[in-house]
Amino acid sequence: MLVVMRVGADNAEVEHVMDRIREFGNTPVLAAGTERVCIGMLGDERGINPDEILMMSGVDRVVPILAPYKLASRDFQPTDTIVQVGDQAIGGKDVVFMAGPCSVESRAQTMELAAMLHELGVRIFRGGAFKPRTSPYAFQGMGESGLQILADVREKYGMAIVTEVMGTEEVGLVAQYADMLQIGTRNMQNYRLLEAVGQQPKPVLLKRGMSSTLEELLLAAEYILSQGNRNVVVCERGIRTFERATRYTFDVNAIPMLKLLTHLPVVADPSHGTGRWDLVVPISRAAVAAGADGLIVEVHQRPEEALSDGAQSLRPDRCATLIEELRRVSRAIGRDVAQVPVAARG
Amino acid sequence: MLVVMRVGADNAEVEHVMDRIREFGNTPVLAAGTERVCIGMLGDERGINPDEILMMSGVDRVVPILAPYKLASRDFQPTDTIVQVGDQAIGGKDVVFMAGPCSVESRAQTMELAAMLHELGVRIFRGGAFKPRTSPYAFQGMGESGLQILADVREKYGMAIVTEVMGTEEVGLVAQYADMLQIGTRNMQNYRLLEAVGQQPKPVLLKRGMSSTLEELLLAAEYILSQGNRNVVVCERGIRTFERATRYTFDVNAIPMLKLLTHLPVVADPSHGTGRWDLVVPISRAAVAAGADGLIVEVHQRPEEALSDGAQSLRPDRCATLIEELRRVSRAIGRDVAQVPVAARG
Amino acid sequence: MLVVMRVGADNAEVEHVMDRIREFGNTPVLAAGTERVCIGMLGDERGINPDEILMMSGVDRVVPILAPYKLASRDFQPTDTIVQVGDQAIGGKDVVFMAGPCSVESRAQTMELAAMLHELGVRIFRGGAFKPRTSPYAFQGMGESGLQILADVREKYGMAIVTEVMGTEEVGLVAQYADMLQIGTRNMQNYRLLEAVGQQPKPVLLKRGMSSTLEELLLAAEYILSQGNRNVVVCERGIRTFERATRYTFDVNAIPMLKLLTHLPVVADPSHGTGRWDLVVPISRAAVAAGADGLIVEVHQRPEEALSDGAQSLRPDRCATLIEELRRVSRAIGRDVAQVPVAARG
Amino acid sequence: MLVVMRVGADNAEVEHVMDRIREFGNTPVLAAGTERVCIGMLGDERGINPDEILMMSGVDRVVPILAPYKLASRDFQPTDTIVQVGDQAIGGKDVVFMAGPCSVESRAQTMELAAMLHELGVRIFRGGAFKPRTSPYAFQGMGESGLQILADVREKYGMAIVTEVMGTEEVGLVAQYADMLQIGTRNMQNYRLLEAVGQQPKPVLLKRGMSSTLEELLLAAEYILSQGNRNVVVCERGIRTFERATRYTFDVNAIPMLKLLTHLPVVADPSHGTGRWDLVVPISRAAVAAGADGLIVEVHQRPEEALSDGAQSLRPDRCATLIEELRRVSRAIGRDVAQVPVAARG
Repeated sequence: MLVVMRVGADNAEVEHVMDRIREFGNTPVLAAGTERVCIGMLGDERGINPDEILMMSGVDRVVPILAPYKLASRDFQPTDTIVQVGDQAIGGKDVVFMAGPCSVESRAQTMELAAMLHELGVRIFRGGAFKPRTSPYAFQGMGESGLQILADVREKYGMAIVTEVMGTEEVGLVAQYADMLQIGTRNMQNYRLLEAVGQQPKPVLLKRGMSSTLEELLLAAEYILSQGNRNVVVCERGIRTFERATRYTFDVNAIPMLKLLTHLPVVADPSHGTGRWDLVVPISRAAVAAGADGLIVEVHQRPEEALSDGAQSLRPDRCATLIEELRRVSRAIGRDVAQVPVAARG
Repeated sequence: MLVVMRVGADNAEVEHVMDRIREFGNTPVLAAGTERVCIGMLGDERGINPDEILMMSGVDRVVPILAPYKLASRDFQPTDTIVQVGDQAIGGKDVVFMAGPCSVESRAQTMELAAMLHELGVRIFRGGAFKPRTSPYAFQGMGESGLQILADVREKYGMAIVTEVMGTEEVGLVAQYADMLQIGTRNMQNYRLLEAVGQQPKPVLLKRGMSSTLEELLLAAEYILSQGNRNVVVCERGIRTFERATRYTFDVNAIPMLKLLTHLPVVADPSHGTGRWDLVVPISRAAVAAGADGLIVEVHQRPEEALSDGAQSLRPDRCATLIEELRRVSRAIGRDVAQVPVAARG
Repeated sequence: MLVVMRVGADNAEVEHVMDRIREFGNTPVLAAGTERVCIGMLGDERGINPDEILMMSGVDRVVPILAPYKLASRDFQPTDTIVQVGDQAIGGKDVVFMAGPCSVESRAQTMELAAMLHELGVRIFRGGAFKPRTSPYAFQGMGESGLQILADVREKYGMAIVTEVMGTEEVGLVAQYADMLQIGTRNMQNYRLLEAVGQQPKPVLLKRGMSSTLEELLLAAEYILSQGNRNVVVCERGIRTFERATRYTFDVNAIPMLKLLTHLPVVADPSHGTGRWDLVVPISRAAVAAGADGLIVEVHQRPEEALSDGAQSLRPDRCATLIEELRRVSRAIGRDVAQVPVAARG
Repeated sequence: MLVVMRVGADNAEVEHVMDRIREFGNTPVLAAGTERVCIGMLGDERGINPDEILMMSGVDRVVPILAPYKLASRDFQPTDTIVQVGDQAIGGKDVVFMAGPCSVESRAQTMELAAMLHELGVRIFRGGAFKPRTSPYAFQGMGESGLQILADVREKYGMAIVTEVMGTEEVGLVAQYADMLQIGTRNMQNYRLLEAVGQQPKPVLLKRGMSSTLEELLLAAEYILSQGNRNVVVCERGIRTFERATRYTFDVNAIPMLKLLTHLPVVADPSHGTGRWDLVVPISRAAVAAGADGLIVEVHQRPEEALSDGAQSLRPDRCATLIEELRRVSRAIGRDVAQVPVAARG
C-alpha cells in the first residue's frame, strides 16, 4: 500500500499516518518527492482498511499494491487448477464443451435435446430449473421437477449436469442433482450464497457479474475458496457497456487476463455474451482462440418456442458445425476439444 | 410491441409472425414501409416473450412499447406513494434526512453518534449490522448483537431504524429489529431476497444496483410490490462508469426521471454515490435540488477509525452544517427538511 | 511514479529499472515489501513515459503519483481563475446563466428569442452556426451567415456570444464574431483545434468529451493553457453510460470534483446532460446546488420546430421560471445568479 | 419511425403529430393499443428529425426503424467491399496483417524494424508521424520527416504505408506519402477531417471511437463515403468500459456484428484493444477467429525504449510466432493469412 499525501501536508500529518501504519503492525517507509510526500509500508496490507487511511488529515490517495484476493491468485498457486466434472477435466489441455437449453421446459424437450447433444459428443449438459428473471412476470423455471429431469439426462446419457442455484435454501437440493452448481451473474456478489456453495463439495461455475471487474470476480471466487471448496471455474459471460447493438459486450480480453491472474479454469458463455444466436459461432471460436478452457452454450431444438432467452440459442444442427469448427481452432493453438471417453461411447 | 422485419422478408415469414402473435391472444397490425415491413400488436404485450419473436425467421428487431413493470409505474398509480417510517413520511412534501454510521461497530460508538444525531433532529438512524463486503477478509458486521444496539438507539432516542438484510434466512430476524429493511446494491437482483421482503410488512429501502438501469430498478421494486408489500422506497446510490476520479458516478438524472416513471418515493445516498466525504455536502444539496424525497448519509464521529467505508463518512459537525444547508435548498424549491415532531422533542 | 515489480522479479531486473530511472534524471528509491519489491522515484515524473518502464522485464505495474496536467491544476494555482465574457465574470461569486437556441436557424427566430432572453436578463447568448452532427444527412448549421446573425444579437442587445468552432480553418472566422469559442464534446481531443484556440486570445468554453475522464478533460484544457490562452472554462455536459432512460448521464460529481482539482471555472450544460427538456429544470438546480459557476441552457420559442436538439430545449416561459428558481437555490448556498449590470438595463 | 404517445394523450395531440408527419411528406398510420396510441409512418424517415416529433405535446417516445446510415449498410450493398492497399486486398478471402511501430522515432529504428517485418512477409507497414497524445507534454511525432522515412520504407521494401492524419491541413501532405490514411479514435467524430479524407482518393482506415457505438462508427464512415471516397476500412480498437485490468475492452462482438451491418472491411487493432503486449497474441487470434479481415499490430524491436505506447508493442520474434499462429487459426476457418505476392519476394 502506498499513501500519497496532499501537496503541502505538514510533518504532523505525515507522522500521524506513519503511527497509524505502525499500529496495524506494518513498517512505514517515507519517500519525499519534489512535490509530494509518499509513505509506503512493509508487511501484509490485506489487514489494513485503506478507507481508514484515506480519511486521515493530509492524505490524498491510497494505492493498493497487492491483489486483495489470495487463494485465487496465480502468485499463491502457480500451477493450473483442474476441476473434474463427470468425465471431463476443466482447465486441462483440452477445451470442454458444455451445452443445453436455457431452461428445462419439459421432459420431452429436454430428453430430445439431450439425445441430440449426446450424439454430438457433448459430455456436460446445462439447463436451468431455477431461473433468475429480470421481470417477476417472466417464466421462473420448473424448480425441483426440472432438477429431476436433469437427473434423468445424466442417468440415460451419462452426461454431467450443471445448473443454477439462486438461493441458500436451495443449495442442498440442487447439489443433490447437479455435478456442478452455477452461480449466475446477478448473484456474483450474493455473499450468503457464495459462502453456502463454498461449504459443500460440488464444483462451482461462477459467472462474472455483468458489471463486475476481474478483481471483483476473483474476490467472489475467494469467498468460495476460503470456505474450503477449491473447485471453482470462473466464466466470462459479457459485460454491460454503452454499446447497444449487442445485448452485452463479450470481454474477450478477460480470458487471457484471468489466465494470468488466477490458476482457476476460465470458461466462456458466448450465448449471453452476445445475446444473438447469429454471433454465437464466431464468438465461440474467438473465445477458444483467446485461450478459454471451455464453453457453455445454449442450444434449443426449436428456438422460436423457447420460454426464455431463445434469441441467444443455437439450433442443434448449427451446434454440430460449431463443435467441428472449435475442434479445428483448438488444434490450431495446440489444444483439442475434449474427447468423449471410450466408456461413454456406443 | 413492434416487430421490425428484415429487408427482404417474404410473405410467409410475415404471416408466420402474425400467426404467432395471434396464438398469444393479441391482434397483429401490419405496417408495410418503403423498405421494411413492421408488425404491431394490440393487447397486453407483457405476456409475450420478445425473444421468442426475435428468433423467428425474417425478424430483425423487436421493440417493446410498454414498460415491463406495472405496479411500480406512475401510469398505474398517478399519485405519490408515501411510506411511513417511524414518525417520518417519505415521499411527502418534505425531505427526510436519514443518517448513521456505515457499520455498527460497538455499543459506545453507536450510542454516542445516535445522541449527536438526535441532537441535530435526525429521526431515522441507519447503520449496518450485516455488511456485504467485496472481500471475504473485510469486516462483515456485528450481526445480531449489532441489531440489538440499533434497537437500543430506537428505545432511547425514538429514532426509526433502517438496516440492511443480506439473506432470506435473516429477513425475519432483521424485521424484528428494524423499521425499514434495506436491500443493498449487490442484492438488487437477488430475487429470492426480493420475494422474501415482499412477503413481510416492514417498508423496504431498495438500493439501485450499481450497474442497473432505472427499468431494472423498477422491475426489482415490482418483485417486492407483486408479493403484496407496497411500501417500497427506491434509492439512487451511484452507478459504475468509466470515470475513476470518484468511486461511483452519482446519477442525479435518475431522481427526476424516477419521479416521472414511478409513484414510489425516491431517496439519494450521496455517501456511496461519491465515495469521498468532501463531495457529500455538495452532492446532498444537488440531490435535494433535483427533487429527492430523502437522503441517507453516512456519519462517523471519528471517520479515520471507521471499520468500513470511512472515506465517505461525514463528521457530525459537518453534518449539522449540511442539514442547515439542505433546509435552505429545500425551501428554495418549496419544500423543507422534515421537522422533528413535537412529541419527540425535549 | 511507483514501479511495482512482479512477484519473483530478480535483482538484475530491479537494477535495470533503477538504472533506467537514473537515465531519466530521477532518483530511484527501493522499497522491498514482504511479497514484492517496489521502486519509487524522486523528481518530476512528467518527463518519464510510464509505458517504457512498464515494458521492462520483471515490471508488473506503474502507478503515477502526480497529476499529468500542471497549469490546469489547483496545486499550481490555488486561487480561482475568473474568465470575463462580455460583462459577466465566470468563476466569481455569482452563477452565470447562458442561454440560446441549439442552432441559429434564421434571423427572425434568433432575434425574437434574443429579445425574450434579454428581457429575462440573460447576458450571454449561445447558438450554433457550425453544428457537429452524428449523421452527414442532418442539418449542419448556417455557417458564416449564422455568425452574422449572432453579431447582430450582440449589437442590438449587448449580450456576449458563445458559439462552437469545429475546425482549425474556422477559428479565425469564429473568433471575429464570438466572445467565447466553444469546443464541442466530439472535439475535446481534437488536438489541432485545441492548439489553434490556445493561440488566439478569446476565452474558450471546453466541453467534456462524452466519454472522457476528468483527467482527460484537464489535459485537454492544458493543451489550450500551454499555448498561452489562460481563459478556459470547462463544462460538464453528460457522459455516456449504460443507462438508456436519459440520453446521457449528467455527472454531477464532476462539478465539486473539478473545483477541487482545478482553478478553472466549471459550468454545466443540463440540456445535453439530460437530453430531455422536462429534466432541464431539476438538473439545472442540482448543478447550481453542487457548485457550478454557470449554466448553459438551450431555449427555443417553439421547440417542436427546432432543426436540431429540440428534445432538450426549454420554452422561454419555462426559462423565466428556471432563472427564478436558480436565484433561490443560489442564495441558499451563499451565491446569486449574476445580475444584469446597470449599464445594460433599459 | 414509430411514435409512441403518452398514456392519456388526447385526439388533438394525436392529430397534431399525424399532421406534422404529413408535412414531412410521409404517411402516418395509426395503431391504437389497449394502453397507448402509436403512430407509424410510411416513407423514408431519414428526412425527419426525431427530436422535433419528440417535443410535441403528448409524445412519449420516438423509435427509429431504419439505420441512419445508407451507403455503409449491407442492405444498400450486399456484396463485400474490397479495399486494395498496395498489393493487399482488405476484405477479401484472406486476412491481411499490418504491422509497424507506434511512432516513427528515427530512420535507423524504422528501417531496421521494416527489414525485420519484410522478412516475415508483412506487406503493409504502419507507423505514426503525427501522434495524437492525451498530454501536451508527450512526444507528438516526427511530423513530415517521419513521413519521409515511411516513404523510404515503401521504396526499399515495397510495403504499403498506413499512417495517421490528425488535421485537415495535413491531409494533402499525408496523402502524398501514405497508401492508406488512418483516422484515429479521438478523431472519429471530427467531421471536418472526415469530409477532407472523403474528398481525396486514398483509402481510409477509420478507427472506432473508444466510446462510439457501432452505429456512430458507421455514420462516421458514411461521412467519408458520402463525399465520394468508397475505400473505407473500419477498425475495432477497444472500447472504454468500467474494467480496469486492461486499458480498453476489445469488443470482439463488434467484428461479426459489423460484418452483418456493413459491406466495408473490418480489421482489428489488438495492441490498443488490450494495452498489454502479453495479451496481443491471444486477442489477435480471437479477432481472426471472429472473422476480422485484417489486423494492425504494433511491433517494436526494443519495446522498453519506445517513445509511445511501448506497453502494447510486440517484439519482432513474438511477431513471427504470431503470424504463424494466425495462419493456423485462419485455415481453421477456411481463410489464410494473405500471402506475399511472387513479385515482392526475393
